[in-house]
Amino acid sequence: MSETAPYENRLRRLRHSMKRAKLDGFLVWDRANTRYLCGFQGSASLICLTGECACFLTDSRYITGARASLPRLFRVVENPLCESDRVARIFKRLKVRRVGFEESAPYRLFKQWTERIAPIELVEAAACIDRLRECKSRDELRRIVAAQRIAEKALDRVLAQCRPGVTERELARWIRRAIEDEGGDGPSFDPIVASGPNTALPHYQPTDRRLRKGEFVLFDVGARVDGYCSDMTRTVVLGRATDRQREVYATVLEAQRRAIARIRSGIAAKVVDRAARGWIEAKSPGKCYRYATGHGVGLEIHESPSLRPQGNDRLRTGMVATVEPGIYIPGWGGVRIEDMVLVKRGGHTVLSRYPKQLRELPC
Amino acid sequence: MSETAPYENRLRRLRHSMKRAKLDGFLVWDRANTRYLCGFQGSASLICLTGECACFLTDSRYITGARASLPRLFRVVENPLCESDRVARIFKRLKVRRVGFEESAPYRLFKQWTERIAPIELVEAAACIDRLRECKSRDELRRIVAAQRIAEKALDRVLAQCRPGVTERELARWIRRAIEDEGGDGPSFDPIVASGPNTALPHYQPTDRRLRKGEFVLFDVGARVDGYCSDMTRTVVLGRATDRQREVYATVLEAQRRAIARIRSGIAAKVVDRAARGWIEAKSPGKCYRYATGHGVGLEIHESPSLRPQGNDRLRTGMVATVEPGIYIPGWGGVRIEDMVLVKRGGHTVLSRYPKQLRELPC
Repeated sequence: MSETAPYENRLRRLRHSMKRAKLDGFLVWDRANTRYLCGFQGSASLICLTGECACFLTDSRYITGARASLPRLFRVVENPLCESDRVARIFKRLKVRRVGFEESAPYRLFKQWTERIAPIELVEAAACIDRLRECKSRDELRRIVAAQRIAEKALDRVLAQCRPGVTERELARWIRRAIEDEGGDGPSFDPIVASGPNTALPHYQPTDRRLRKGEFVLFDVGARVDGYCSDMTRTVVLGRATDRQREVYATVLEAQRRAIARIRSGIAAKVVDRAARGWIEAKSPGKCYRYATGHGVGLEIHESPSLRPQGNDRLRTGMVATVEPGIYIPGWGGVRIEDMVLVKRGGHTVLSRYPKQLRELPC
Repeated sequence: MSETAPYENRLRRLRHSMKRAKLDGFLVWDRANTRYLCGFQGSASLICLTGECACFLTDSRYITGARASLPRLFRVVENPLCESDRVARIFKRLKVRRVGFEESAPYRLFKQWTERIAPIELVEAAACIDRLRECKSRDELRRIVAAQRIAEKALDRVLAQCRPGVTERELARWIRRAIEDEGGDGPSFDPIVASGPNTALPHYQPTDRRLRKGEFVLFDVGARVDGYCSDMTRTVVLGRATDRQREVYATVLEAQRRAIARIRSGIAAKVVDRAARGWIEAKSPGKCYRYATGHGVGLEIHESPSLRPQGNDRLRTGMVATVEPGIYIPGWGGVRIEDMVLVKRGGHTVLSRYPKQLRELPC
């Protein structure tokens, strides 16, 4: 049986959000949201929540485990998920009229619900839970930091093995292992190891390309502890850096420094984005990254808030977000530097302790 | 640049299915379907397909990689995926009227499409691609078998390390490593290692529980090679088996033998399911598994067809499906035996070579 207190608190806050959104019911399908609300880690379940009742539905594969492990706040019911009649019965019995659901739910489920649950109204309401998850509790933060420390040790180990001739894929494998050896549940995403011109591809899958002297090598690594993720990127040079490498690196590092400096509770996320983006656009016109400057991290490696040019997100105390500007020059290479930052009243704390001055690996 | 031939063939067959479903357009969002149709392995893209045109949309993180690696059959376009206007323009320019889409697509995307693409009609059509993927080509089969051989070697290694005191979690970790060491891309799913009473939970997550003498230990393991999965379960006894363990094991093994014996092209999937289920219900009333007897395996660990009591799926030549009956007795333990089987004209081939007589590990 799980500890009840954190889940009780989360359910209470979700119910409060539901009230404000005039919802008297909620359907939770998303895996991370489910884990957040009740700790369940299986691949198939549905939570039917109302003001008074929390019903947890799962199928025969998981039912025994769920009965044994879920907090007592939930009534655990065996129900094949393709069978929405049960959901309809629950909500009708409880006289629910407006049910929130997550827009990430598959269209297939949404359609079933609309057919079976009518005339109950279905309302897009993922934001109700996203907002709760954005601000981390002390316990959540402890896990994120633990995951980050593990990733740091893993990167340390692997940088020591980095030399010409080693492949990107080998390095990615060593990172995965080092994360496990250091006590992580595993990586929080497939590690990115890119070398030479491949560093110009922001989202890259490691290949059998062998590292060469004088090239950039980019590591984007994260670990997972008790479900919580960490995320960090470092770019190093194998051997002596050229002037151009130094210059590009310095520009990205300064962009990151400027963005991080803006972080405090209450500031608009786009202001942080602008601080990094503006610097890179000024120093390297046309070479700036086109995606967001950062993203929230928690039970998922990418969650809200998004630090991007559009949008009205404001940073709040307890949020954890990455700051990861980059410069990507096709055919030549790229640099990204990424750290997780905790938002605080009047300031912030950078959660990684890993050095970020340009590192030239001996080779 | 990828080899073009297999993708050309798949696009041709999909267009043929589209014609039969009176679709003149198709939106492909699903990751496995995308990989199947063009080889792309990133986490965000959309294919807009018509009879003549194949347009591949992805965002700035992936665009350079996609341009370099996609088969020439596709026009690669940079487009943020939250921006469906481009999709609408493409389909309108090509005078498309009925567009198929996958029901697994998130409601959020579906809603955007309906708003932007109207008056073009959106039609649920995942089955068009699912059906194509069910029957494996020689190349696909080669990868599945390669993945299976790797999983077998990994299980061999790990069984040799199985002794009282070792934890489920350690064994799961060793399996993951052995799969990599044997040349797999990684596991096709988180290995299940359950011991003692935990073997009664069909979908289980390994814990720090230590193995004890005389208990069942269940291993559900699969590897991945070039994107293709394998899937196999073996249940062993640590030490000497009791009579009841032997009896339960023999019942499951015979149920599996009976189900596999029915497999040939043309037979209804539910007949195969019935062969295993009926045997277990007769021998151990009330103890039979409640989920499906098996599932297709390919780019995903679970894909169609489903070998279950309901449904009208018929097996066809080239399909690869698991046969995995089990008996689960809460508090005592359970046995599952699982192999992948290739459907052939007039018969079948079991793809695993791993022995399945009850194994009593020395301890």
